[in-house]
Amino acid sequence: MKYIRFYKDEKICYGILEGDTITEVDNDYIEYEVEKLPITCGIDEVDILPPTEPKQVIAIGLNYEAHAKETGKEIPEEPMMFMASPSAVIGASERITLPSLDHRIDYEAELVLVIGKEAKNLTRENALEYVFGYTCGNDVSDRHLQKKDGQFTRAKSFAGFKPLGPVIETELNADEAPIKLSLNGVVKQESNTNDLIHDIKQLLVKVTEVMTLYPGDVIYTGTPSGVGPLSPGDVVEVEIEGIGKLTTRVER
Amino acid sequence: MKYIRFYKDEKICYGILEGDTITEVDNDYIEYEVEKLPITCGIDEVDILPPTEPKQVIAIGLNYEAHAKETGKEIPEEPMMFMASPSAVIGASERITLPSLDHRIDYEAELVLVIGKEAKNLTRENALEYVFGYTCGNDVSDRHLQKKDGQFTRAKSFAGFKPLGPVIETELNADEAPIKLSLNGVVKQESNTNDLIHDIKQLLVKVTEVMTLYPGDVIYTGTPSGVGPLSPGDVVEVEIEGIGKLTTRVER
Repeated sequence: MKYIRFYKDEKICYGILEGDTITEVDNDYIEYEVEKLPITCGIDEVDILPPTEPKQVIAIGLNYEAHAKETGKEIPEEPMMFMASPSAVIGASERITLPSLDHRIDYEAELVLVIGKEAKNLTRENALEYVFGYTCGNDVSDRHLQKKDGQFTRAKSFAGFKPLGPVIETELNADEAPIKLSLNGVVKQESNTNDLIHDIKQLLVKVTEVMTLYPGDVIYTGTPSGVGPLSPGDVVEVEIEGIGKLTTRVER
Repeated sequence: MKYIRFYKDEKICYGILEGDTITEVDNDYIEYEVEKLPITCGIDEVDILPPTEPKQVIAIGLNYEAHAKETGKEIPEEPMMFMASPSAVIGASERITLPSLDHRIDYEAELVLVIGKEAKNLTRENALEYVFGYTCGNDVSDRHLQKKDGQFTRAKSFAGFKPLGPVIETELNADEAPIKLSLNGVVKQESNTNDLIHDIKQLLVKVTEVMTLYPGDVIYTGTPSGVGPLSPGDVVEVEIEGIGKLTTRVER
């Protein structure tokens, strides 16, 4: 099922996307069991919002071997986690604003997990029960600040630096999902989540060994090789087979 | 004014602390204008909760010169920010649990800012208008994981690693506040916030240049020199003149 959150007639709505048609549902799908309403509209008629409003945005660094190599870093023995501000999250109808034209600001296509229920100390056996579904994300990063700070939070937390969407797919086989990023129509990143160094279950185990995750929280699972800079006017597409395509425009 | 949040008769209450007496107020003091209720009790009769429930826990690294020196790191030209999980926050009546006895886990006394209203792009001139008040914090840190990960989030986000309290003082001169940490009665850290490399206003300016802060969010402002390890059975006291003393016990 593809869940979508959107803005229509001056209110926030929740729905299910089938083809290009949204059928509204009666409540927030992450918090409640929802039912379809007899209201439909086309996806082009609405503003698409981020499909979740996370309390916590967790991200994993260097989780594809080829990307670890392109950064010149060693592969982390355990998942390397950091956090970004939820205020950086935007939906597919919003734009990535570059806060500086002097800094190199990169795209990073990522599979993103959305948590369905409060989760602490998960095991590989029960981990997937706590996942509501999966969405596409772009872990936009100011490389100058990332290097300067050492800590990644600032470089990755500017408003608009965490595009998410367009939908949450609940049925994905997340261990075997082709992932691709195109910049102005040219493919720049292309991989498959079966190349993840630490797989989905392992990420859930290691993150919840430390902290409690809440419904709607997200884990950015890491980016494949091929990262590169964004410029004003660019159109970035993150596409994960089975989920869809997150298209975002860049402005200054 | 000293605001306190506590648990009494199986419910969460809000109050004002004067001496050892709490006078209950009618609502959450961070979100609402509150009025005193005709109900009082002694501070020893209640379980003290964290005085705020932050959505975001921001922390600043290496913000006292002597501490930067003791870690062997260079002083950051700009505030070095990272985030910890809000699920790590505990109140003065709870305990710090050590997740590992093999890792060195340190105390770090810190002045903590509590945000009063939604804040973005603050200036030095208006920054303090967005501060609700100040509390004592302990930025408990697993040194083994901090070094291993490079990123600080994991090392600082275990349940119980972010003690806060006991009260939020709204009237403090935070640029000139003596701060002290005692371990089992022995003073280990002793400084004054006038030694901060990046002062309170600067932290607010630089953090909100990046992200939006929400009411109740906290900024741990950095720790002075003298950090050291915790052991089961320890009693740690963080004392900031004008706020009070945050006493927490350590267990395995």
